[in-house]
Amino acid sequence: MPVQKVIYDTDPGVDDAMALFFLHYHPDIDLIGITTGHGNASVEITTRNALYLEQRFGIAAPVARGAAGPVTGQDAHHASGVHGENGLGEVELSGDIDVQAVDLPAHRFIIETVRRYPGEVRLLAVGRMTNLALALREDPGIAGLVKDVVIMGGAFGYNGHLGNVTPCAEANIYGDPQAAEEMFAARWPISVIGLDVTHEVLMSRDYLQRLAAEAGDAGRFTWEISRFYENFYINKGLAGISVHDASAAIYLVAPELFETRTGPIKVVCDGLAFGQTIQRPAHVGFPPNEWDGRPAHRICTAVKGRELLALYRETLLRAG
Amino acid sequence: MPVQKVIYDTDPGVDDAMALFFLHYHPDIDLIGITTGHGNASVEITTRNALYLEQRFGIAAPVARGAAGPVTGQDAHHASGVHGENGLGEVELSGDIDVQAVDLPAHRFIIETVRRYPGEVRLLAVGRMTNLALALREDPGIAGLVKDVVIMGGAFGYNGHLGNVTPCAEANIYGDPQAAEEMFAARWPISVIGLDVTHEVLMSRDYLQRLAAEAGDAGRFTWEISRFYENFYINKGLAGISVHDASAAIYLVAPELFETRTGPIKVVCDGLAFGQTIQRPAHVGFPPNEWDGRPAHRICTAVKGRELLALYRETLLRAG
Repeated sequence: MPVQKVIYDTDPGVDDAMALFFLHYHPDIDLIGITTGHGNASVEITTRNALYLEQRFGIAAPVARGAAGPVTGQDAHHASGVHGENGLGEVELSGDIDVQAVDLPAHRFIIETVRRYPGEVRLLAVGRMTNLALALREDPGIAGLVKDVVIMGGAFGYNGHLGNVTPCAEANIYGDPQAAEEMFAARWPISVIGLDVTHEVLMSRDYLQRLAAEAGDAGRFTWEISRFYENFYINKGLAGISVHDASAAIYLVAPELFETRTGPIKVVCDGLAFGQTIQRPAHVGFPPNEWDGRPAHRICTAVKGRELLALYRETLLRAG
Repeated sequence: MPVQKVIYDTDPGVDDAMALFFLHYHPDIDLIGITTGHGNASVEITTRNALYLEQRFGIAAPVARGAAGPVTGQDAHHASGVHGENGLGEVELSGDIDVQAVDLPAHRFIIETVRRYPGEVRLLAVGRMTNLALALREDPGIAGLVKDVVIMGGAFGYNGHLGNVTPCAEANIYGDPQAAEEMFAARWPISVIGLDVTHEVLMSRDYLQRLAAEAGDAGRFTWEISRFYENFYINKGLAGISVHDASAAIYLVAPELFETRTGPIKVVCDGLAFGQTIQRPAHVGFPPNEWDGRPAHRICTAVKGRELLALYRETLLRAG
């Protein structure tokens, strides 16, 4: 596979950091930018975390700070119960941070980078979709200029998964449904890695312990930050941690590990189903409806979990 | 299995007639009433069809005519494109009908019958949930007096099925979401047979031809009325007809053919997801939400299709 230019839109975040390691150590990925946003913690914290990770792990991509809250101007909700107040599992992040964010807001960084490399950039978005929506609002033309968009977000009911914040809404979409709705309306190819598959793959404590032993500082740090996160999942009765953002990162280089379904997607922006993603399957006929005329996107419906876990581990071992 | 007292709330309807044959010919089912409603056709037509079926097939249960439209007073939508204008696949229903409906509206017939046999009655509802909601409104106490409620309706995303009228709404719920919402709020045990399973089982033309040859007049009539219906499904690209209402009838006597999930259910009554059924799975934790305090119900998530088809055929052969 030729090297892929990737902008990583993220809100680190325990699993965001784990996905970042995959992007950094995978030989086919050229990480050309990191944009931050609200989500797992405030944008102040997620930006600090992105810079910390860059410095500690020698990642050179420019970091651009993004939106502090949803496009609607409503308050941002942070997932501190999952990722800890500091976004990285309450692990102490000691030492000064010398790297700095660039002097551009995230959405403008996205626009400028996409226009610099027309047809080449892949946007990997694993937080709220706010930065992508703001970029589209300012420059709708970028939709025709990116290579594609891969997101972690949403849920479509496959394997019984429809939501994690509410019974029908996944956190990244729930945190800014209007932004997601605008993103899905745009004519750029989107692949959606939702709970349908990310809740189907678990990293066990044993798996994480092996990473700690074998994958150098990245493995050790993954182990440390995942203690708080693991506790959240264990308390839910699961046998390990769900592989959310890293699954989307892996999709970039190994889409063959996923089964998919195509069709236009809309997002519920009010009422009981607030934050739900609904796809009209392309192969099923319906009477005229609100999905008509919208572009088709791809959702993931099944995943080869064992192969995914093996690829993640193999990639992180490059850090060892 | 001891004999089950069943009231069949129905809107015949091609697959309603097919489910009725199963109820009539299965030795463990005592059909003690048929209530009709709007849905596959107007309540005038569905009531006429119920009486026709009773006369032609020697079914003795009283028929009570039910609601002409949703509890909200909005217009009823009929599925004539699926079942034909006459509800039974445009097959000519010749001859006078001598049997008559009882002089009670359906919801009151349900109340009186449930109160006559406390703890014994199973309500099988395969049309809009209007009659059940009206019965609950008039006499909420019946919720504690039925044995259980089994419905065909809704969809929860399993196996990729979320809707057939819209991308997220199934026809029986879409036709009166408010009634369904009230039904799911009641503390009676409900088992939901939705598209998650009914779209997973197909009766092929060969299967229907064998019924026509071997299952007497019921088999021949099933073949005739299913021509129009089959055409609808073939045009959708399917290899046969979905087994909607008969799956719910079969659940009454063979629940072991289904996998299930429990949890409270709410129905979306406005907006993009109008008519969607959403269950909060009982085994998953969520922040406080609108499902709190509502009773848990059971949805079907998987079905043993081959065994289901065999049981249906075996039961109809009793008519041969």
